[in-house]
Amino acid sequence: MTSTISMGQYLFKRVAELGIEHVFGVPGDFNLTLLDELFKVQELNWLGVCNELNGAYAADGYARIKGVPGVLVTTYAVGELSAMNGVAGAYAEHAGMIHIVGMPTRAVQKARTMLHHTMEPGMDQTIYVGMAEPIRKTHTILTDENTMAQEIDRVIEAGVKSKLPVYIYVPMDVVGIPLDASRLEKRLNTTVINSNLQMEDEVVQSTLELIRKSSKPSILADVLTIRHGGRELARRLASATQFPTYSTPLSKGVFDETDSKYNGVYNGEGKANSRHQNDYLLKASHLVSFPGCADSLESSDLVLNIGFLLSNSNTGGFTRKIPDENLVLLGHDYCQIHDKKFDGIHFLPVLKRIVEEIEKNPKQSSIPKPDTRANISTSGPITQSYIWQRIGRFLRPHDIILSESGTAQFGLTDAVFPPHTQLITQTFWSSIGYTVGACLGALVASREQTGSSTSTSTSPTPRVILLVGDGSLQMTVQEIGSYIRFGFTPLIFVINNNGYAIERAIHGPGMGYNDISMLWDHQSMLGFLGARKETGIQGRSFACRSVEELEGVLDEGEFKSAGCIQ
Amino acid sequence: MTSTISMGQYLFKRVAELGIEHVFGVPGDFNLTLLDELFKVQELNWLGVCNELNGAYAADGYARIKGVPGVLVTTYAVGELSAMNGVAGAYAEHAGMIHIVGMPTRAVQKARTMLHHTMEPGMDQTIYVGMAEPIRKTHTILTDENTMAQEIDRVIEAGVKSKLPVYIYVPMDVVGIPLDASRLEKRLNTTVINSNLQMEDEVVQSTLELIRKSSKPSILADVLTIRHGGRELARRLASATQFPTYSTPLSKGVFDETDSKYNGVYNGEGKANSRHQNDYLLKASHLVSFPGCADSLESSDLVLNIGFLLSNSNTGGFTRKIPDENLVLLGHDYCQIHDKKFDGIHFLPVLKRIVEEIEKNPKQSSIPKPDTRANISTSGPITQSYIWQRIGRFLRPHDIILSESGTAQFGLTDAVFPPHTQLITQTFWSSIGYTVGACLGALVASREQTGSSTSTSTSPTPRVILLVGDGSLQMTVQEIGSYIRFGFTPLIFVINNNGYAIERAIHGPGMGYNDISMLWDHQSMLGFLGARKETGIQGRSFACRSVEELEGVLDEGEFKSAGCIQ
Repeated sequence: MTSTISMGQYLFKRVAELGIEHVFGVPGDFNLTLLDELFKVQELNWLGVCNELNGAYAADGYARIKGVPGVLVTTYAVGELSAMNGVAGAYAEHAGMIHIVGMPTRAVQKARTMLHHTMEPGMDQTIYVGMAEPIRKTHTILTDENTMAQEIDRVIEAGVKSKLPVYIYVPMDVVGIPLDASRLEKRLNTTVINSNLQMEDEVVQSTLELIRKSSKPSILADVLTIRHGGRELARRLASATQFPTYSTPLSKGVFDETDSKYNGVYNGEGKANSRHQNDYLLKASHLVSFPGCADSLESSDLVLNIGFLLSNSNTGGFTRKIPDENLVLLGHDYCQIHDKKFDGIHFLPVLKRIVEEIEKNPKQSSIPKPDTRANISTSGPITQSYIWQRIGRFLRPHDIILSESGTAQFGLTDAVFPPHTQLITQTFWSSIGYTVGACLGALVASREQTGSSTSTSTSPTPRVILLVGDGSLQMTVQEIGSYIRFGFTPLIFVINNNGYAIERAIHGPGMGYNDISMLWDHQSMLGFLGARKETGIQGRSFACRSVEELEGVLDEGEFKSAGCIQ
Repeated sequence: MTSTISMGQYLFKRVAELGIEHVFGVPGDFNLTLLDELFKVQELNWLGVCNELNGAYAADGYARIKGVPGVLVTTYAVGELSAMNGVAGAYAEHAGMIHIVGMPTRAVQKARTMLHHTMEPGMDQTIYVGMAEPIRKTHTILTDENTMAQEIDRVIEAGVKSKLPVYIYVPMDVVGIPLDASRLEKRLNTTVINSNLQMEDEVVQSTLELIRKSSKPSILADVLTIRHGGRELARRLASATQFPTYSTPLSKGVFDETDSKYNGVYNGEGKANSRHQNDYLLKASHLVSFPGCADSLESSDLVLNIGFLLSNSNTGGFTRKIPDENLVLLGHDYCQIHDKKFDGIHFLPVLKRIVEEIEKNPKQSSIPKPDTRANISTSGPITQSYIWQRIGRFLRPHDIILSESGTAQFGLTDAVFPPHTQLITQTFWSSIGYTVGACLGALVASREQTGSSTSTSTSPTPRVILLVGDGSLQMTVQEIGSYIRFGFTPLIFVINNNGYAIERAIHGPGMGYNDISMLWDHQSMLGFLGARKETGIQGRSFACRSVEELEGVLDEGEFKSAGCIQ
């Protein structure tokens, strides 16, 4: 006699197996009974957000801290379509997401009933399933009772391994179907392996040989190193080899930036290349590298480039100059040594073997270096050259910092991070408003990792710090109410720079289309959304118009301790 | 020598030709130069919204008041995907929308450059174009200079005629391409005609004959009557025939509800039919008809059912009982007389001919009837049976009222509207949060129609009244800041009913997934978003926990006059 478990609980047990404790989403007519099953799974908690786009951002932010996909539950049509931009961002930047969508019953789908959230008579009700095809790795519609369990397993495994969004569509009438519970005794297989071991061997041995032969090597770890779970391996590689290290704009924080071997953010030469010189976007995307950084990296005779993502904003507008003969690319879908490409080889098992090999005979570790790039102001207006480095000095080890696309994102590359800083930013997908939702996810993941506030853990409690512009804030502001509702205490810096400042820098500095409402009273925002005397929830707000005012806040003990939302 | 006009200005001149004065949207890297062209067209104004979903809702609300498509401008990927749910709603409910999306240059598209807002190396950059296919009538990507003008015309004409969303994709590098300006001398052809005149004749003549022969006729005008511009014709038909009239939940307000011939909202029998009796959604969607309304309509020997939309929530969960032999369906894509179907025949030309024929010998007009359904409370808790009828008595002729999906939408069918009331509600698509965005569009359209506040027009200034629940408000609250920014003075009723009340009614009344943050201080919302002493913008807020408190507000002259946002 086999014991059974409802389809809904089976699904959420698999989710919990990944170490996930919170599921994000919005209830809707077509997912209520599914949520009933979620509420029966002790290991999981429901975290209702204000809207689905914010929920997708939150799941994405959660995934970036937790290292497993965030889970988002939405309802048919209105919910899933609202989330699309957020899911696409998780696709572009490999954050990963398990998007579970409640659907009409199988009978209603078959009858093509003109239910609410459909669009016209006789409509194929899977039409929205098709719309999401480009923004996911794979999907399943749970219609066949005989394959449901396998399908759930298959899709979740693909999502965890690929770090791309996956969709599970759940018709309302299947949530209670009994599935074989014994399947749960065998855990999901989420380990990334290369099926072509011979090819993997060649990449490992060739790379090791190049490392041995090199006289001026470098490690350039890009963002997919972090997304695909390779950050610790990259740090071990740096430590064992004592090679100079570099990050990219997207991977900032991948290495300990106080280490003497860390050389900064590499972003090409920072000039437009000729092919695109008439394209203002490509020009605008040219963040320059740190001074001396490009020369130093580009003169290496070996660049180990791990987890690369070669978009415009991450390559100085395609101005990287690393000759193939000095380059080893270790990517998530292929590796390349000089001009030889190894399709389908994932860097993670490769990197693991290389690190283990080199650690057998590691070099002595280096000592932290002083920060020599400080631009210290004590008075006057708050300038770009001051603020970002100052934010860097404000950070403590293990802090999680979110920088919104635009001013904060581009500026923050100037900051020197303390060890174990985690940065969340969306330089490639670049959807403004993202960080306000993602911050909720980061808060949830961070709480899961450090345990409750009464935890006896001795590791420092990470602060979660949000840097967001006034225009981006207006996109998604309501989710700050969720921080308050769920008892989180982030530090929020609203950069009140009078509109879409990054767009003004790109085009139309004086044009009305770059204006936003300047009437919002940010000082009353936390009170409006829940932190005020009557609710008993403490919140503190400050307006800083000068360096003196800002320094006063940044140096204040109560602010720094982040004991309430501020 | 032909004079030329830039592609961008050509497009926006065509938009202005429709009588449109405001364009909604959010700027982004890929539409900034397009917006430069918009700003050169004197007849048009830019109205920047907080985010793209709200922008789509605003364009939809605008269209419902103005009778022509709302125009939405978004940027590549992040913008267009964020808007999808709002566009789909305009599709489902035939609001119409011209969605203009800025894209990368043609050269960048051809090179498949890995620009921000793409998702992976070598990606076909038109991938998002494909995702929107199910939610539009037609689209064009303006890549070919020789056909751009024709394509713009074709797509706009299709959008106006069909009342369905259309997409115009504009690569950044084409906005300045000179087009032949003389094309603009010939106006767009936006008149709906039936190409098969013989078939149209048969529908008209058969219907006229049935009208002549009938002894107990009725007119049931549904929502597509309004959306496709047939409301005035339906009212003229009612006036000329003196037939009893009925609306549906979606078309409430189509007839003058104080007219003695108006019989109420018909919504079937309000009981589940057997086929779907296990489907809680279909049960929940059963709004009952007004007392006596179903019996009266269903005993007619002729029901002229114009502009029908036969979704669950609009048909009492598919419980309409009108036998084919008594039914004339006059729809937007087909008409049907008894069991004979006329595919492709649009009701609008048909209705026009029928009305003109009957008006040659109209019956005498009826007199207004007193409202006999008043449920008048003077004290105690605010109940469902009191509030909606009371809202009805609060309305003035020409008011525009928006009722959010859920409690407000279902409740408001109890209200008796004064003449010329316009209701905006989204019963079929049912995306919560919609009305907060749509209200902005309604405000803009209403201002366009009545002219500026210094106008000497003698028609009463319509008030715009928003009824929204606390859960829906949290979805889209930021757009209330846009009302304030642009000087609008709507009356906003926030129904503070402790979460997703309509979902509680459907399923899980005590479940945590139907909770929302109850910490928001609605009394400080207008101040936070801009209406406060320091800005010089007046806003007034009231908390009403009883009938006495609510009556005190509703009876107050300053409130009723709607001179500031309240």
